[in-house]
Amino acid sequence: MPLVRIDIGSGSSPELRQAVSDVVYDAMISVANVPRHDKFQIVTVHAAEELIYPPEGYLGIDYTSGIIFIQVVWNAGRSTDVKKAFYRRIADDLHAMAGVRKQDVWISLVDVSPENWSFGNGVMQYAPK
Amino acid sequence: MPLVRIDIGSGSSPELRQAVSDVVYDAMISVANVPRHDKFQIVTVHAAEELIYPPEGYLGIDYTSGIIFIQVVWNAGRSTDVKKAFYRRIADDLHAMAGVRKQDVWISLVDVSPENWSFGNGVMQYAPK
Amino acid sequence: MPLVRIDIGSGSSPELRQAVSDVVYDAMISVANVPRHDKFQIVTVHAAEELIYPPEGYLGIDYTSGIIFIQVVWNAGRSTDVKKAFYRRIADDLHAMAGVRKQDVWISLVDVSPENWSFGNGVMQYAPK
Repeated sequence: MPLVRIDIGSGSSPELRQAVSDVVYDAMISVANVPRHDKFQIVTVHAAEELIYPPEGYLGIDYTSGIIFIQVVWNAGRSTDVKKAFYRRIADDLHAMAGVRKQDVWISLVDVSPENWSFGNGVMQYAPK
Repeated sequence: MPLVRIDIGSGSSPELRQAVSDVVYDAMISVANVPRHDKFQIVTVHAAEELIYPPEGYLGIDYTSGIIFIQVVWNAGRSTDVKKAFYRRIADDLHAMAGVRKQDVWISLVDVSPENWSFGNGVMQYAPK
Repeated sequence: MPLVRIDIGSGSSPELRQAVSDVVYDAMISVANVPRHDKFQIVTVHAAEELIYPPEGYLGIDYTSGIIFIQVVWNAGRSTDVKKAFYRRIADDLHAMAGVRKQDVWISLVDVSPENWSFGNGVMQYAPK
């Protein structure tokens, strides 16, 4: 169900892009109660000037052209604690596994309702009973 | 009002992309009470490795690199039955008209409020009375 | 906090893209109570056939291939009046500063909750107290 959009710079290696994909998926499974194999992601690669962040930083965080935007559309209902753990896991794992600066891990969530998905076949798989 | 994002692989033909655009629009008009000519869509073409789906499938559905991600942002208020009919129509028509595997038709909806749109001229066209 | 997606045609100049970025940010600061330096934007450049609008126009507005799609995900709570002022400011400034047709300024908002952001470091910066 989650649909993940990953927007990343053209300077990133294929290995890094793969790591982002895998880390976000693993965090979903591990801390956000997403079902196994529910891995649907759209990666878009951008020229440097297309990923815009404040050169002055924001909230004491400074960014580089290595910034990675991760946007997750998923079902509403996850708690503040789960969302906190989700953010932390992604930043920690991207840093540990791929050397990404934690400051450059930028995440946005959009909560929707279970009726708002069709995973194929023209069916609403999460229809209310 | 709906803003549709269509993310599709670079192996798709221009004719297929056109069919996706038209089928989604037609389904909106036919089953989801969208006004005629309200056709605003953004197509993004991706390298194969940028459209990520589970190789094991999900919920019994198996996917190919022909997967088409369709995300619709539109006004809240449509019923579960309308959303079901919308999914079905898109998958049926894409299969019938363009030979798309129904399994590869992946749809995500995001519901917003009528104040959240400007269709040009800097005006909130759906402002509350 | 706002995450802005700007989808624009490949016929646009780098200067125009920069102007869109700056105008949207300035409108946020000036009329929508967004904090200074909160400037996070993703620009995607599209071939002409990838930005789809109704050739017949919609609601009396006619569009050209110069259409600019601006989608803003931000925290809920902004009033109808603020949203109206936001739309107007963007269209007015893009017209005055970059000669953009006001009809071609297309804006979509998505409201989310403050828990739905991590601006880096794996932290939920806007966590509830």
